Amino acid sequence: VSIVQGAGAAAEKGNYRHFMQKEIFEQPDSTGRTIGAYTNILRQTVELPGEGADAIDWSEVKYLYMIACGTAHFATRVAEYWFEQCAGLPVKTDIASEFRYREPALAKEGGLALFVSQSGETADTLAALRYCKEQGLKTAAVVNVPTSSIAREADLVLPTLAGPEIGVASTKAFTAQLAALAAVAISAGRAREQISRDAEIRLVRALTELPRLMSTTLQLDERIAELSRDIAKASDVIYLGRGVHYPIALEGALKLKEVSYIHAEGYASGELKHGPIALIDEETPVVFVAPFDGLFDKSLSNLQEVAARRGEVVLISDAAGVRAAGETPASRIELPDCDPFIAPILYSLPIQMLAYHVAVEKGTDVDQPRNLAKSVTVE
Amino acid sequence: VSIVQGAGAAAEKGNYRHFMQKEIFEQPDSTGRTIGAYTNILRQTVELPGEGADAIDWSEVKYLYMIACGTAHFATRVAEYWFEQCAGLPVKTDIASEFRYREPALAKEGGLALFVSQSGETADTLAALRYCKEQGLKTAAVVNVPTSSIAREADLVLPTLAGPEIGVASTKAFTAQLAALAAVAISAGRAREQISRDAEIRLVRALTELPRLMSTTLQLDERIAELSRDIAKASDVIYLGRGVHYPIALEGALKLKEVSYIHAEGYASGELKHGPIALIDEETPVVFVAPFDGLFDKSLSNLQEVAARRGEVVLISDAAGVRAAGETPASRIELPDCDPFIAPILYSLPIQMLAYHVAVEKGTDVDQPRNLAKSVTVE
Repeated sequence: VSIVQGAGAAAEKGNYRHFMQKEIFEQPDSTGRTIGAYTNILRQTVELPGEGADAIDWSEVKYLYMIACGTAHFATRVAEYWFEQCAGLPVKTDIASEFRYREPALAKEGGLALFVSQSGETADTLAALRYCKEQGLKTAAVVNVPTSSIAREADLVLPTLAGPEIGVASTKAFTAQLAALAAVAISAGRAREQISRDAEIRLVRALTELPRLMSTTLQLDERIAELSRDIAKASDVIYLGRGVHYPIALEGALKLKEVSYIHAEGYASGELKHGPIALIDEETPVVFVAPFDGLFDKSLSNLQEVAARRGEVVLISDAAGVRAAGETPASRIELPDCDPFIAPILYSLPIQMLAYHVAVEKGTDVDQPRNLAKSVTVE
Repeated sequence: VSIVQGAGAAAEKGNYRHFMQKEIFEQPDSTGRTIGAYTNILRQTVELPGEGADAIDWSEVKYLYMIACGTAHFATRVAEYWFEQCAGLPVKTDIASEFRYREPALAKEGGLALFVSQSGETADTLAALRYCKEQGLKTAAVVNVPTSSIAREADLVLPTLAGPEIGVASTKAFTAQLAALAAVAISAGRAREQISRDAEIRLVRALTELPRLMSTTLQLDERIAELSRDIAKASDVIYLGRGVHYPIALEGALKLKEVSYIHAEGYASGELKHGPIALIDEETPVVFVAPFDGLFDKSLSNLQEVAARRGEVVLISDAAGVRAAGETPASRIELPDCDPFIAPILYSLPIQMLAYHVAVEKGTDVDQPRNLAKSVTVE
């Protein structure tokens, strides 16, 4: 059961067929609202919202743990790259159900533990938070429900302003988590003097451009709906990505699993040859999440390997990537150009839309998929 | 192409139908040989083999990175728990293809990077090793081929004595990697005064008992062959495990993928409710790797959830686990009791046997699965 905030009016579908679809389309707003709360547009700086924003002195942090479950865990996996790159921080991410029972060796001095949960009530995440507090670590929490248990117990609350999320498969909460974490990574980078003031201006500008780019991306809806008719026939789908897009591939696979019941699996592109390529045949669509960045050449070579084995390749990229891939992919989804920093947030949209349309095509109960609950408040 | 050591005679199948089967059955020997090289039975101590064994002062290590690909990566994921528990060491594992392009923030002072590769020629792993050396980190390598590039370039070589592995899907090299890593973790624990002399004696004894327990476990072959007829009908299989058995679930799924082309996926049991449970129906076998340890109750509750959704449960456990699960699992594979420390090594055998027999049942080319090469020496 979900604990939602906001007015009852928010829980109506309006012109949308499902809450999931409505929430996908709300993302320019929900992400924009979250970014607005973390940035000062006039000064072009990141400013963390709310009370206790100065509870963490990032220059003193030596080690960052990020603990979460499910989709929120994938948000931390993206943020791992951001905190490494912007703040030069060693990061370890873990699944909450694993972390809490491992009682791992923690770097107590300078260790900060950050938890991410839409509901703020996820049982394993809450237990992990309590373990870290007992161990004397400072704690921070990215939550969508500010009155939740996790929000109450963390030293620093980093709110997402996604508004109530009704669809069981998380969409706008995920991108809001990513936006908040991106802002926090910039803030940490500045506090630790790992990025220059110029870099901060560039990154803040990239974040503030995101809502507009999201709106443009949402115009691909019809194109993706069309493509989904093919994918809906598959019994298995592989999602591949590299670097910061590897967790987006994982999230893409999870989304498809959750709402369409198709067995989708995400993999790091570089691991393809270490096993999963054995699965590839003409019946297995392979979705590459690969903007034209520094890793694109490597992804293109993986893409060609898949195509050579008659796998049906779907490329999600930008104009340059689509051009470079030529006729090899069976299908192409072309996103607007964007700053590589915010690309994983933008690339979350097509994988959500794809999962949504495949589910609709298959006639599943999109907003209440079988066996799933909105918040996992038991172990 | 594999670079193998040893005499040509070793590359014959003898009475076995496939190299994979032969190599599965060699594991009491290959693991015993590896453990023999790392332990002094009379003194009941761990003693690292070969030159340069004192190249690493474990009491000075503050942070351990373990980098590998494919099956070797899963060996490091098991070892992560061992180094945390025995040596109180903060550990980070990463996929080599991800690590090398991320150029992550590394703890240079006291940072040790350990690489695992059967061939010692895995391109991404070698590149990651070179990156770490450039960054000034000490390096160690667990390899099966002592003349390999990775062995030559690492500061400390930790050999596995698995002998030449011909089957493309790794079996005896994996358990030899685990055995070597377990011994190194004990050694690190002693050097760091994190485990007592009594604990070392217990753990060394557990390691030396492993070959005998493996022989007993291999007697389950016929039972597993029988079970595999059912699994071979499935198009999808889920493997679940918790703690140190979570990577064994990942490896079980990889093994089945590689040789049977069935889409198998490993998951942390605690993540089941955060998505993958939506896939469960009567056509999806779910394999639980769950000895009766401190986490068994949690696994049993996951197992019951799967069974309640009519998933066909295969439980791999010991006598106490099988008893506790009662009639809920559709099938049970009962392993001999063992020390929890070595359980992940022992539990590697039934998942290998299951993959092997399913592949035979499906009539695939077990030793040379489609699309796969023995060593991935290109990026």
